Amino acid sequence: MSSSLSKRQQNLRRLLNPKHVCIVGGQAMEESIRRCDETGFKGDIWIVNPKYTELGGRRCYASIAELPAAPDATFIAVPREATIDIMAQLNARGAGGAICYAAGYAEVGGEGRDLQQRFIDAAGDLAVVGPNCYGVLNYLDGIALWPTGHLGKRVETGCAIIAQSGNIALNLTMNHRSVPFAYVISSGNQVILNVADYIDAVAEDPRIKAVGLYIEGITDIPAFSRAAAKALANGKPLVALKAGNSELGAKLAMSHTSSLAGSDKMYDALFARLGVIRVHTIPQLLETIKLVSSAGLPKGRRLAVFTCSGGDGLLTADICEKLDVPLPSFPPAQAADLRSQLPNFASVTNPLDYNTSLWGKEDLLTNLFSTVMAGDFDAGMLVLDYATESVESDEVFDRSRRALITACERHGKMPIITATLPELFPTGPRDLSVQQHAAPMQGLPEALTAFASAHSFAEYRAGRAAGKASPIEIAAVPVLSDQAPRRLWSEYEAKSKLAELGLKAPTSRLVKPAEAAAAAAELGFPVVIKVADPILAHKTEAGAVALNLKSEADVEAAIQRMSASLAAYKPGARIAKVLVERMVSNVVAEMIVGIKRDPQFGLALVVGAGGILVEMVEDATMLLLPTDRPAIAGAIGKLKIAKLLRGYRGKPAGDIEALVDAVAAIAAFAQAHADSLVELDVNPLMVLTDGAVAVDALVVTVD
Amino acid sequence: MSSSLSKRQQNLRRLLNPKHVCIVGGQAMEESIRRCDETGFKGDIWIVNPKYTELGGRRCYASIAELPAAPDATFIAVPREATIDIMAQLNARGAGGAICYAAGYAEVGGEGRDLQQRFIDAAGDLAVVGPNCYGVLNYLDGIALWPTGHLGKRVETGCAIIAQSGNIALNLTMNHRSVPFAYVISSGNQVILNVADYIDAVAEDPRIKAVGLYIEGITDIPAFSRAAAKALANGKPLVALKAGNSELGAKLAMSHTSSLAGSDKMYDALFARLGVIRVHTIPQLLETIKLVSSAGLPKGRRLAVFTCSGGDGLLTADICEKLDVPLPSFPPAQAADLRSQLPNFASVTNPLDYNTSLWGKEDLLTNLFSTVMAGDFDAGMLVLDYATESVESDEVFDRSRRALITACERHGKMPIITATLPELFPTGPRDLSVQQHAAPMQGLPEALTAFASAHSFAEYRAGRAAGKASPIEIAAVPVLSDQAPRRLWSEYEAKSKLAELGLKAPTSRLVKPAEAAAAAAELGFPVVIKVADPILAHKTEAGAVALNLKSEADVEAAIQRMSASLAAYKPGARIAKVLVERMVSNVVAEMIVGIKRDPQFGLALVVGAGGILVEMVEDATMLLLPTDRPAIAGAIGKLKIAKLLRGYRGKPAGDIEALVDAVAAIAAFAQAHADSLVELDVNPLMVLTDGAVAVDALVVTVD
Repeated sequence: MSSSLSKRQQNLRRLLNPKHVCIVGGQAMEESIRRCDETGFKGDIWIVNPKYTELGGRRCYASIAELPAAPDATFIAVPREATIDIMAQLNARGAGGAICYAAGYAEVGGEGRDLQQRFIDAAGDLAVVGPNCYGVLNYLDGIALWPTGHLGKRVETGCAIIAQSGNIALNLTMNHRSVPFAYVISSGNQVILNVADYIDAVAEDPRIKAVGLYIEGITDIPAFSRAAAKALANGKPLVALKAGNSELGAKLAMSHTSSLAGSDKMYDALFARLGVIRVHTIPQLLETIKLVSSAGLPKGRRLAVFTCSGGDGLLTADICEKLDVPLPSFPPAQAADLRSQLPNFASVTNPLDYNTSLWGKEDLLTNLFSTVMAGDFDAGMLVLDYATESVESDEVFDRSRRALITACERHGKMPIITATLPELFPTGPRDLSVQQHAAPMQGLPEALTAFASAHSFAEYRAGRAAGKASPIEIAAVPVLSDQAPRRLWSEYEAKSKLAELGLKAPTSRLVKPAEAAAAAAELGFPVVIKVADPILAHKTEAGAVALNLKSEADVEAAIQRMSASLAAYKPGARIAKVLVERMVSNVVAEMIVGIKRDPQFGLALVVGAGGILVEMVEDATMLLLPTDRPAIAGAIGKLKIAKLLRGYRGKPAGDIEALVDAVAAIAAFAQAHADSLVELDVNPLMVLTDGAVAVDALVVTVD
Repeated sequence: MSSSLSKRQQNLRRLLNPKHVCIVGGQAMEESIRRCDETGFKGDIWIVNPKYTELGGRRCYASIAELPAAPDATFIAVPREATIDIMAQLNARGAGGAICYAAGYAEVGGEGRDLQQRFIDAAGDLAVVGPNCYGVLNYLDGIALWPTGHLGKRVETGCAIIAQSGNIALNLTMNHRSVPFAYVISSGNQVILNVADYIDAVAEDPRIKAVGLYIEGITDIPAFSRAAAKALANGKPLVALKAGNSELGAKLAMSHTSSLAGSDKMYDALFARLGVIRVHTIPQLLETIKLVSSAGLPKGRRLAVFTCSGGDGLLTADICEKLDVPLPSFPPAQAADLRSQLPNFASVTNPLDYNTSLWGKEDLLTNLFSTVMAGDFDAGMLVLDYATESVESDEVFDRSRRALITACERHGKMPIITATLPELFPTGPRDLSVQQHAAPMQGLPEALTAFASAHSFAEYRAGRAAGKASPIEIAAVPVLSDQAPRRLWSEYEAKSKLAELGLKAPTSRLVKPAEAAAAAAELGFPVVIKVADPILAHKTEAGAVALNLKSEADVEAAIQRMSASLAAYKPGARIAKVLVERMVSNVVAEMIVGIKRDPQFGLALVVGAGGILVEMVEDATMLLLPTDRPAIAGAIGKLKIAKLLRGYRGKPAGDIEALVDAVAAIAAFAQAHADSLVELDVNPLMVLTDGAVAVDALVVTVD
């Protein structure tokens, strides 16, 4: 299996950097052939069609066997049955990759499913894109293995797009945003190759600066996590638009590409762990990869902003505050210098309204911007809408853009030019900006969000590189059969096993009901008593818990009441054993810690505020396993309840170290039982002034 | 004053619907003259310039006095000093409105302030736009009183834009979005006319369907609230982009247009009360007014969505869920009908992926869409990107658009066409859509947000019309002098006066320290004791509060401790009086209720969760005064703590009626003391299972 995968990975690299390409199909593909010629592909282009002698000005071969060599990349534009035959021929010939345009496989159900199996069998070692896809655009080499038009241009470096929807891939290629695409890959049904394979391949290409993803579902999370870790290590941000995050969306995604949608929170956890930048709109996807692939990654987020309108400055400041992008003010000497260059009524603030008095004067603007960029800033952003009626009238506006780029170049700072209305940034200045390694951004929130997230990516990467990094790859867990019987552990057993790994529980005794009062006296009052045998999933509902018992008499009375409740809840049931526990005191905060098992994501640890806060405030965070103490401490620090844990309004602080230990113990328990754990809930986990104690624990496993 | 205002308002209406326009200025204005000619203005255009005999092909008059009549609308494009003279002449002549382009008045400080005063004196009854503005574009009559280019077209109906930033107004006019502008008003410094005046005028024009606002600050909130109430009554949504909502932004706004920025939360409260749709980006502003001014207001929010890609359907479903826009599924009969029209592998869901098999077949698409729109939907949205390379290739894509419009027209439903990439909706189909009363939307989140907010506006308006509506206009309050001495009321006095209006407090006695124990015994234990005389602003910090005292001995001991603490806190101070209160029990929730006085917004009532929740969760809401019980109940119902108040997880519910009464009493108290109240805080207000009790109350007034 691993050697076959390796061969396929090699074939994928042939597909992405082909010496020769082959198109199997009819007249519909003439346009693609023409486009490869136009964009100047240097390698061979072979056409296979038994019915024609010539297509698109090139001779046709009657079959794969007749080709001069095994093609590196083949676009198969024939119906679904014939596609399978061609793939078998390609595989037999030792070809590289095959792009399968045909649809009608597993996504249509019924006979499509059988066809898909034959498709898989035929593929062999081929690197197969699709089926049910638009193909691959390769702007590095000028190859359009793609059935329709597109608007991209040749590039030497740029970004890759990997999109699970053909139509969205198509729309992306038609953008008017000067995004320097290196590859556009429409991944289709992902029967052979999936998004992880593509990321893995492009992540090692130095010409690729960023990777944009449109994802409906990820089938192989561990593989995705490995590929994403590689991209992170190589400094290439992944920018993901994950669709299907609503309840309806998830349902539709399942029916639509038969992807398992997974919980959206798990995707958030996955992306956070891997440094994947998550976006929520198509323009944001494009703007983010454009910023990185044109201007690179910012060294910091201290931004200087230039506007020729107070209004634009206000709008920028508002967004920066939300995104935590600092707009430092100018130190006195710099401010004085700026003041000397501006009319005396201009206010010298950041954002700097550079005012109509300098408008159109490129040399003066360059000086002004340069005075700013000499200061302690990481990037300079010019907010500029080309509010013009024609290409000719763009020229005056363009002087500001050129001035910014010159000023930033002079001081080694990142230049960003942003139009508040996306359409008011004409093609010419946009394309030029990309060549000049300046980011031509369209939309103010999009631009600032892209800048902030590109920096967060760089910072996350540097942070991982610096210290002892927390685990990054996700561990696969076996899928548990629905048929396998589930076992609910007794609270006593759960707490005992968790205690072996370091999770503290209240001091307790497991005794017969008649011995409870004596045990309580021995432990010291107040105590809590719970029915331990029979094992009950919902003890509170069954009246099987009694809190805050202060004397032996209280205990006796409680046992009486519990016996009666239990008999009513479960006729015939009698209490065989009770758990007597010291009641915890000095509680600072009540937490919930749980483990969810997901067929895709493996084991996920949820930590959140418990008690009354649970429903009023969604205050929980998720970490995928494996994890470690620093990651757990980081996650807890971001909860709202962290304020309470740190000591709220003069109240005592909680023992956060003990809380982290407790959560780490729960994570370790889950890892140790990865093959059988179905569900785990420690609720509540009481954080005390000194220590953290699991008051209740529920464990379900398959045995 | 009121008669002068009325004359000015009449003059504003002359300015907006002029029979003749006048331009005072030089060659720079030739373009404006030419544009008025091109767009076909039917009235007279007069030029005033003493140095030329002709400008832009028209004769020049040497002065205002020489004009054939007093002009309805005059654009003054001369320097700031000369502008004042021209205004005086226009006023003397009985002209209508004057647009003052010159800058350099109060916004530059110094002598500019003096000039601004002379400017005001010269204006008389004139309706003056600006100064420091771009002017007025009137696309209803074809008039460009505007110094530069713009891209608008003549319309018969449309929307108005009122923008406080000239540059933003300019950019808006250059949009590539087919927004049917009727007016674009750049309001500049708003020295004479302000945004309220413009809203008031356009709100009564039946040709105006929506009003877009770019606001940095509102100076006259009561006037704005009256104008907005009129727009609401007339069914014209106001859509506001309010800049300067960050801390830095607010500071910049003050320096920039010398507007008082006010708290952003107060703007939220104001907009919510007036049904103003708040947006946060320039594209969102344009898309929202475009939707309403092309397709009108939706009757409901049940949406049918058509896509030719599963991906677009997912993205749409995700956003709809967030916006609470229902996508009802098709009833069985309808689904069967749809299934018969689609290939057998298509899934019949809403969003409906209408699939490439029907692509380009307008009649079949019309039938399919019509089958859907016959159902129980309020609007149909086609998600369509014109992923084309030329105008010619748009045609096939356009068939889907036409099919949707036909289908919606057939069943009287609102048609919406949305491109996911704003730039992939070409001008031709966009312009046509507007003419066909279909909304051509650019950007998926923008489109769905516009639809949802347009419906919320319609619903709010209907709700107000239906029942006994809560107060809508904001009451002005006098500005309190900083010099006037502030008086801190004693808690006893505050509670007593609040009690007269219905706010309950614990049973209490105001006694000498020596009488405290006896008073406590009479009230019944447990009690709380607080130092009442001297009056202390921070009783807890001074050790002047003792809680949960259970016996006379406890009370005596507490008095001892408090005497010592007080002496340490305020050397020489002795307790003259203490307040003895019954300790409240059966507390369900702790609330905070306060009144803030704002120089612009008047009195604002803040209601929020108290106690430990305050800092962990921002759970507070604001209502501007006057208000009433239904508005208070509505606001409380939206708090997160409402879950707790309604009875949380089997715990007892709070007395919400009593809470509303308590808040209404506080509001009534604030209204009654509107001339003197500086600050009021009831913290905590305990909501009990039966009743609501103010445990502490702080009142500060000027006397």
